[in-house]
Amino acid sequence: MAVYTHLGAEDMAALLAPYHLGDLVSAKGIAEGVSNSNWLIETARPAGETARFILTMYEFRIEIADLPYFLGLLDHLAAKGCPVPRSIHDDAGNLYRVVDTARGERALALIEFLPGVSLGDPTPGQARAVGAALATLHGAAADYPATRANGMGLAEWQRLAQECGADGLASIAPALAEMVAEHLPRLAAQWPTGLQTGVIHADLFPDNVLMQGETVTGLIDFYFACNDILAYDLAVTHAAWCFDASGEAFRPDLSAALLQGYASVRTLSTAEQAALPLLAQGAAMRFAMSRAYDWLNTPADALVTRKDPLAFARRLLFYADPANSGVFAA
Amino acid sequence: MAVYTHLGAEDMAALLAPYHLGDLVSAKGIAEGVSNSNWLIETARPAGETARFILTMYEFRIEIADLPYFLGLLDHLAAKGCPVPRSIHDDAGNLYRVVDTARGERALALIEFLPGVSLGDPTPGQARAVGAALATLHGAAADYPATRANGMGLAEWQRLAQECGADGLASIAPALAEMVAEHLPRLAAQWPTGLQTGVIHADLFPDNVLMQGETVTGLIDFYFACNDILAYDLAVTHAAWCFDASGEAFRPDLSAALLQGYASVRTLSTAEQAALPLLAQGAAMRFAMSRAYDWLNTPADALVTRKDPLAFARRLLFYADPANSGVFAA
Repeated sequence: MAVYTHLGAEDMAALLAPYHLGDLVSAKGIAEGVSNSNWLIETARPAGETARFILTMYEFRIEIADLPYFLGLLDHLAAKGCPVPRSIHDDAGNLYRVVDTARGERALALIEFLPGVSLGDPTPGQARAVGAALATLHGAAADYPATRANGMGLAEWQRLAQECGADGLASIAPALAEMVAEHLPRLAAQWPTGLQTGVIHADLFPDNVLMQGETVTGLIDFYFACNDILAYDLAVTHAAWCFDASGEAFRPDLSAALLQGYASVRTLSTAEQAALPLLAQGAAMRFAMSRAYDWLNTPADALVTRKDPLAFARRLLFYADPANSGVFAA
Repeated sequence: MAVYTHLGAEDMAALLAPYHLGDLVSAKGIAEGVSNSNWLIETARPAGETARFILTMYEFRIEIADLPYFLGLLDHLAAKGCPVPRSIHDDAGNLYRVVDTARGERALALIEFLPGVSLGDPTPGQARAVGAALATLHGAAADYPATRANGMGLAEWQRLAQECGADGLASIAPALAEMVAEHLPRLAAQWPTGLQTGVIHADLFPDNVLMQGETVTGLIDFYFACNDILAYDLAVTHAAWCFDASGEAFRPDLSAALLQGYASVRTLSTAEQAALPLLAQGAAMRFAMSRAYDWLNTPADALVTRKDPLAFARRLLFYADPANSGVFAA
């Protein structure tokens, strides 16, 4: 979470000129995003009205070819009333621009600033609201015309596991290597087909939800959005919201509220309901593998904080335990 | 430049409760400050009016005993109309509070948010405004009753040079070790006495000045403020504003404008005028030494970006060169 590229006020003003937003009043680099630099920008028109935006410079990991999918999705969802930031188009109608910086060519985009705070310790009422917002998003995106494959799906978990190697995983923790050896082939063999697909957020952690009280004011950071199984998105959100940070303590109250909230907007099919325990194991495997890879490939004192892969290994074991099969019961 | 301590929305709301600012609407960690974590906070009262603040958590290097000097100075200057952020007092009137965090006890303070942007490439008109703002600050602080010794004065440059050692300095660059060996004893022998002292900012780099056009909207980051020679503060500001980032290219237009701006508000005495070349060498030595120490004691890939000590070694040689003695001529 850092600002990777320094931008002086003059650079910033030049970057913003094609958006005709008025004069730059304030620009603060904000500590959000691990793959991009972000600034909270305020502008003022001569008449005095001010507006706020987030300027994002894409630094790593993102394919510029994917930006129309991500940014167009924001506009599609915002037009349907979902609490997502609209993208701001430049005077030529472009969703994003490519600029030269001291660090090379970078794509940048401007989106609306939304109020709200990210929760550290949600209540059931807040988890219910998030479940409902996710189901609403799934419905609103149903007619989004573009598609994007899930770059963090099963094949990628397998590739990451292979890149880490059994020894690499064991160097993080022997239990992690054992978990992968036991569960990854089984997930691959049992992964469901035929469930309803659509546009999913795929990364709806508390960090990516802005709230005021029990109202969701912003769903943000759509840079893993893709087309995949809708119920898998619910499983990802469940894994992200219903445990403490270490992955040890399951919170049945948050789980029940999140699932109720989702079901209040979109009814899960019998097949989706039945698949949820397996989908949740997949969600846990996805984050365990990306975190394990980052753990082994990020210097311990780099700008980006390493996140513990074991927190998601524990969640996987929780979801795989038949004693917990009631968690997703209708 | 980072946020060192994670605060969830609930922690943040609890921290803000004793300030009675209304409900927390937004909180963004901002990438400013190397010794503290900062958040840009927005609050709303039931009637709907919103306000913005900077919440600062002091992480390193700062003595809590110094906070009343720094924060009280902001209030003193703001009351006199200087563009500095007022400190916000809690319901018991405290300027700061000490709280428990996951990383231990931390002091925190809340100050006003000010608009404006930090310049990367100032114009002479902007440098003139900064010179005038500095002189105005010196005047407004003349009756500030508290005092604080300069912890980054000559004795500290000598201590840092000793800590680095000739070998350490030479490991950064042989020219740096030579510069220190030649000029530090001379500065110590010639350092002026008897010049007017008062409250100085002592670190007025472009990062610490917020501007809109040619108007200074904020002088910020007073955490090196102290009582010392007033003209030394002008010399620090000169060294910080009148060269390119590498310290190679002197900008006579910015230099003339900055000095004119200062003189338009406060007349330098003949002795101050004569001392400026030496004071400027001291200013350059101060930043060369603190940067050299940080260079040798900061891991290359730590959160904090290392700044090049040579940029200020070059400025020192510029100021020490008799060919440049006209820079500070009245």
